[in-house]
Amino acid sequence: MPYVNIKITNEGATAEQKKQLIEGVTQLLVDVLNKNPATTFVVIDEVETDNWGIGGVPVTELRKAK
Amino acid sequence: MPYVNIKITNEGATAEQKKQLIEGVTQLLVDVLNKNPATTFVVIDEVETDNWGIGGVPVTELRKAK
Amino acid sequence: MPYVNIKITNEGATAEQKKQLIEGVTQLLVDVLNKNPATTFVVIDEVETDNWGIGGVPVTELRKAK
Amino acid sequence: MPYVNIKITNEGATAEQKKQLIEGVTQLLVDVLNKNPATTFVVIDEVETDNWGIGGVPVTELRKAK
Amino acid sequence: MPYVNIKITNEGATAEQKKQLIEGVTQLLVDVLNKNPATTFVVIDEVETDNWGIGGVPVTELRKAK
Amino acid sequence: MPYVNIKITNEGATAEQKKQLIEGVTQLLVDVLNKNPATTFVVIDEVETDNWGIGGVPVTELRKAK
Repeated sequence: MPYVNIKITNEGATAEQKKQLIEGVTQLLVDVLNKNPATTFVVIDEVETDNWGIGGVPVTELRKAK
Repeated sequence: MPYVNIKITNEGATAEQKKQLIEGVTQLLVDVLNKNPATTFVVIDEVETDNWGIGGVPVTELRKAK
Repeated sequence: MPYVNIKITNEGATAEQKKQLIEGVTQLLVDVLNKNPATTFVVIDEVETDNWGIGGVPVTELRKAK
Repeated sequence: MPYVNIKITNEGATAEQKKQLIEGVTQLLVDVLNKNPATTFVVIDEVETDNWGIGGVPVTELRKAK
Repeated sequence: MPYVNIKITNEGATAEQKKQLIEGVTQLLVDVLNKNPATTFVVIDEVETDNWGIGGVPVTELRKAK
Repeated sequence: MPYVNIKITNEGATAEQKKQLIEGVTQLLVDVLNKNPATTFVVIDEVETDNWGIGGVPVTELRKAK
């Protein structure tokens, strides 16, 4: 009965891509730990780039600097 | 000083229902563990159905299949 | 398919008390939002008092000050 | 490689203030634990006041009562 | 720069299995969203079976009932 | 009423260092957002190096490789 939370920046992941993440993580837990997919939850959080920092800098600024 | 995080799918919970969750969980922690409600936090996250998977399938698809 | 995470300090909650929290929160989600208990997860984290702060002070010190 | 999640109510924090939180927390982890900022993540969640309770009461009501 | 948190019950996952989870989730995020693995974090929490409930029942009891 | 969760690897942070993190984060939220420290929670999680991955590799292996 695993619970997986995936946090990514909100930069245009499609419903199809999020479906692939849900499928892929669930299958991984079956393959590695023989977990029951029926009780495996995956929750994806999409975070605004102003609200995510790395190296002390918001991702919004990192994207502009590129 | 408990902290409780409730994640539900974003399918129309009303402000009144969310208030009942906050009241109910806080009271439960008083009743079972004698926790001080003044320092009990409850945070509710409402998650898009595209972003929640169970059994490897997004809830959006599970709802359609019903 | 709710997911609930309860964080409390590690100060002697018994297995019976944790069972009551699990039962109580699950029932609350049935009562308020008509959620299916079969796909309701409750995860309890017990946190060392050195690792929990309130008002800028670790709980370990707050307990001594009482 | 720390990960920090800051949850605040959604009451008008500006991009500049969120940047200051990201900078400040990252620097704190350098100062106290000598952590590498390049692999320090800070994620800020802004939570609706209907969805945050304290003392068993939604913050929306606490704000009105003031 | 994704962050992934995997919660499983504490029932004997080996270091090798946890390594496979870390590798697999990181690769999935590369494959689906072209994320940079160098800034992808995976954190695994192993939760005592007394502290995880499903269907309102602690996993400890579900395991005994089998 | 902020809630802050700091996750670090379990590599010997002392109670004094954790106290400094709690103080520092709480003060930061006062300084930047004028938050009330009395209702600011800080929770520190110390994660085994086998259970934290970066770049698809457990920290345990990264430490050995140095």
